[in-house]
Amino acid sequence: MTSTATASSESAGTTTPSRERLLDAAAALFYREGVNIGVEALCREAGVSKRSMYQLFTGKDDVLAASLDRAGSGYLARLLPVPGADLTPRDRVTYVFEQLESLSASPDYLGCPFLATAFELKDPVHPARVVARRYKDALTDFFREEARRGDARDPELLSRQLTVAFDGSSSRAVAQAECLGGLAVATATAMMDAAGMA
Amino acid sequence: MTSTATASSESAGTTTPSRERLLDAAAALFYREGVNIGVEALCREAGVSKRSMYQLFTGKDDVLAASLDRAGSGYLARLLPVPGADLTPRDRVTYVFEQLESLSASPDYLGCPFLATAFELKDPVHPARVVARRYKDALTDFFREEARRGDARDPELLSRQLTVAFDGSSSRAVAQAECLGGLAVATATAMMDAAGMA
Repeated sequence: MTSTATASSESAGTTTPSRERLLDAAAALFYREGVNIGVEALCREAGVSKRSMYQLFTGKDDVLAASLDRAGSGYLARLLPVPGADLTPRDRVTYVFEQLESLSASPDYLGCPFLATAFELKDPVHPARVVARRYKDALTDFFREEARRGDARDPELLSRQLTVAFDGSSSRAVAQAECLGGLAVATATAMMDAAGMA
Repeated sequence: MTSTATASSESAGTTTPSRERLLDAAAALFYREGVNIGVEALCREAGVSKRSMYQLFTGKDDVLAASLDRAGSGYLARLLPVPGADLTPRDRVTYVFEQLESLSASPDYLGCPFLATAFELKDPVHPARVVARRYKDALTDFFREEARRGDARDPELLSRQLTVAFDGSSSRAVAQAECLGGLAVATATAMMDAAGMA
């Protein structure tokens, strides 16, 4: 991503701010309306010409992947506890599920953006699907590390079960239009208990 | 749905078979390619003229809802154990997760069709979203009834947790492109254990 920005910033009118403006607008629009939004609507929303877009990106698929990557890091940072915070491994996992409950209570919540992208783009090797998978794996990695530190019986299994609890809760908030009201935290807690996590 | 078919079957060339052919083609196409497939492509795939389609349905949204409804009943029937089969409540719940593991192992698996529809259509009151919610609620109802029969501590909570396990497992198979390999069954089992279900 950085290399594209650096290469493009040499040509006139394609400064980094317009790249970032385009990606922020794209991430918001794709999340709100779906990945089938056209290039015209995208450029209009971002206030960027199509010419500028094609100077910065190879095409819409490239914008989709880069915008999910940019929005994704902020989303993940919002979910995870601050490194070094004085929390037990169990508290750190619980924190993620509390954040999910809080996010999903917003009327603008349309589910986990990585999951939405994975469901919407049917091609598993689409570049945005690859970005989505990387972020989902990062969450599983976080759970595995905490499960290990908390002496869970099978940290690998627990990390996958906690990802299932996360995605299932996020999906329920969308598909059943239900306020989670503690369901995500209760489910994660039951799984940590079952795995004997401290 | 039935009333539409009955009303339309009076006009020449719009017999029930063409309605069913259209719905089957639509369900397969929407699942495989996404809900943004146009009316042209849909009619081509079904071998039905646009004129016939508009005689049978008010528009694409109507086709989307009716095709999900038609495909959904078959999908749910495939997941649920046969009524009256000699199984304990726990076995009956486990059966659903075994079926999910088996379905998701297919290379054509693109996740739960109700969840895919819910993520793809951003409007929560779209008629197809209403159909999706009804089917997801039916699965939760099944879990609640089994949890009650199996003397779970809190059948309502367990039924919601099992739905979370179902949707989270289905999502993982898509978003992380992972073979479940027993994860869905193991997660449901841990939840039934935690709820003290017989």
